[in-house]
Amino acid sequence: MKTQVAIIGAGPSGLLLGQLLHHQGIDNVIVERRSGEYVLSRIRAGVLEQGMVDLLREAGVDQRMDREGLPHDGFELAFDNRRVRVPLDKLTGGSKVMVYGQTEVTRDLMEAREAAGATTLYEAENVQPFDLDSDSPYLTFEHNGENVRLDCDYIAGCDGYHGVSRQAIPQDRITEFEKVYPFGWLGMLSDTPPVSDELIYARHERGFSLCSMRSATRSRYYLQVPLDEKVEDWSDERFWEELKRRLPDEVAEKLVTGPSIEKSIAPLRSFVVEPMQYGKLFLVGDAAHIVPPTGAKGLNLAASDVNTLYRLMVKVYQEGRTDLIERYSQTCLKRIWKAERFSWWMTSMLHNFSDEEDFNSRMQLAELDYVTSSEAGLTTIAENYVGLPYELLE
Amino acid sequence: MKTQVAIIGAGPSGLLLGQLLHHQGIDNVIVERRSGEYVLSRIRAGVLEQGMVDLLREAGVDQRMDREGLPHDGFELAFDNRRVRVPLDKLTGGSKVMVYGQTEVTRDLMEAREAAGATTLYEAENVQPFDLDSDSPYLTFEHNGENVRLDCDYIAGCDGYHGVSRQAIPQDRITEFEKVYPFGWLGMLSDTPPVSDELIYARHERGFSLCSMRSATRSRYYLQVPLDEKVEDWSDERFWEELKRRLPDEVAEKLVTGPSIEKSIAPLRSFVVEPMQYGKLFLVGDAAHIVPPTGAKGLNLAASDVNTLYRLMVKVYQEGRTDLIERYSQTCLKRIWKAERFSWWMTSMLHNFSDEEDFNSRMQLAELDYVTSSEAGLTTIAENYVGLPYELLE
Repeated sequence: MKTQVAIIGAGPSGLLLGQLLHHQGIDNVIVERRSGEYVLSRIRAGVLEQGMVDLLREAGVDQRMDREGLPHDGFELAFDNRRVRVPLDKLTGGSKVMVYGQTEVTRDLMEAREAAGATTLYEAENVQPFDLDSDSPYLTFEHNGENVRLDCDYIAGCDGYHGVSRQAIPQDRITEFEKVYPFGWLGMLSDTPPVSDELIYARHERGFSLCSMRSATRSRYYLQVPLDEKVEDWSDERFWEELKRRLPDEVAEKLVTGPSIEKSIAPLRSFVVEPMQYGKLFLVGDAAHIVPPTGAKGLNLAASDVNTLYRLMVKVYQEGRTDLIERYSQTCLKRIWKAERFSWWMTSMLHNFSDEEDFNSRMQLAELDYVTSSEAGLTTIAENYVGLPYELLE
Repeated sequence: MKTQVAIIGAGPSGLLLGQLLHHQGIDNVIVERRSGEYVLSRIRAGVLEQGMVDLLREAGVDQRMDREGLPHDGFELAFDNRRVRVPLDKLTGGSKVMVYGQTEVTRDLMEAREAAGATTLYEAENVQPFDLDSDSPYLTFEHNGENVRLDCDYIAGCDGYHGVSRQAIPQDRITEFEKVYPFGWLGMLSDTPPVSDELIYARHERGFSLCSMRSATRSRYYLQVPLDEKVEDWSDERFWEELKRRLPDEVAEKLVTGPSIEKSIAPLRSFVVEPMQYGKLFLVGDAAHIVPPTGAKGLNLAASDVNTLYRLMVKVYQEGRTDLIERYSQTCLKRIWKAERFSWWMTSMLHNFSDEEDFNSRMQLAELDYVTSSEAGLTTIAENYVGLPYELLE
């Protein structure tokens, strides 16, 4: 088998990259270890930056998003039993975000790819990239019981933190930066109307909580929990009780409870690998970097990597500018480190790191008090939340 | 002896408070453990916020400051071998700071107090406050070989971090918050022209440095050093060499070196006590809170405490509003915690915490990269640096 760009991973970044390349006439094949149903069963974030929304439009997958997505022009910070709204549009000259689940984005992209007739090989086992530092890299894998070799010009590693792409790079050619947080997020999905039209990020001495939503009738709530907590120990009743205690009274009063559809615990991690490319292999999204979910940057960062790689590939195939491809990593990393900073800062400011009131907890309150009482402070939050500008290629 | 307000400590806060009260006809006596010469020999900060400058004007001690002080409408952040200017006036609607040494402020205040004929008792030994929770508090001390009792209505504790005032409050009535940083600042004073007209705060992987000045011919430079460092180990040559290595090349080239006048090492600490009052005793400045010097907030915070206590005392003596005095601590603390945050943040962003390049050092660079490339980010620095507004009394 032969293609121009081999893409490992059929998550939203692999699918979005494939669709954009396809529209420009650049041939690509996606190879995915799991089934399409499995990929769609993963429940993930759902706040899209304007830049990602624009990119989905460019990929031609905006119809359902425009119909079902919820444009948000603000969100709330809650602390000290009070709420402060961050008016995104007012502070950023009109930018907003779109609440539309990652699962929906993935589904739309899968359907568009199928309609376009581009190749996605699901349930491809033992995917392995080879000869990355040569002019003829290739993948091998097993598919439908056969051994397949896929020759290509470039490989896009869109296979996430645990994928094979990053591991295929010699250890002495990359540096990894990591911070693991001493807690996780317990998420619960329920068919209840959201407690508020906008997201609420709440700091409380019992721990962080987040009120989020998927639609006008489906809510997604999160609680900070210790890392060793077990989902089985959290009945729906216990979850709702704890959530109420962590929210400002006037919010807790309005909370509509009901049976959960799903509950899961995810750890929080900051991670970046430098550089994000090795020979003909380019790491995209979670394969190269992880952010803690506070600030909703994970999926959006993957989209900005896709944006960069896509535009570089267009220059390669339409203008012969193979030289520019060397700039992929540095172009991506400039924006990634700023998003890592925002995610780390939001996480540090809003989570409980100690059971005692200490200097650190006073710094959190002082930080919230300052940023919410200063137009400049609120603007730093707003401009990061809607997404810093994509780095330009020269 | 009897007075209305007994002030412990003849540093800048005690002297400024005394002068302001005296102007309003409120009788006060300052009791100081050391000699006047000793107080003046302490070399300290020299960046005054607009609010403190205004307060010194109100106290009538602005003539020499206006003549010799250097108004600064900007300063520089240096990192990654580059410099970014923070234009204070442009970002804050015209605010600036005044570079004028704490020693000079103290000298001006001493002279004004002497001219006004108000009482300062220097070299008062074993000062001790009594009956703080009664209507007739008093101090005892030894002065000129005699035991003295000073009866008063109120006591202002302006005697610094190691003073007796805070220690006179029962331990179970206060809470202390503290953070000790794992490094100190080695400061050097020299009669050399400053390397730049404006202050330069520099982050470098070898450690933080600060280029500051007292006048057009006298410089004050600082280097981050390990806590166990000894001044004797730092020859002038070693100091200049190390400073050059930590500054951007274009700054290092311009550095004029010369013999030092003074060198000393100070530890860095964040400290706050809550509340700042107990009965008739009010803690002012360093007696209640310490900030690390990054951001130049120490003296300025003392001045804002003085401002609050002074205005409350005026309401007590001129309007009989003894009820308002209960608000001293909460009024001060709101602004103090924000200044603690700014000082901690500047310290965290600019100092070297590890010899390795790690996630934390990348966060520092990302933070500097973000704040210096965002108008809102720069504004958060500028508005804190020139001083947040004084909290209003109702």
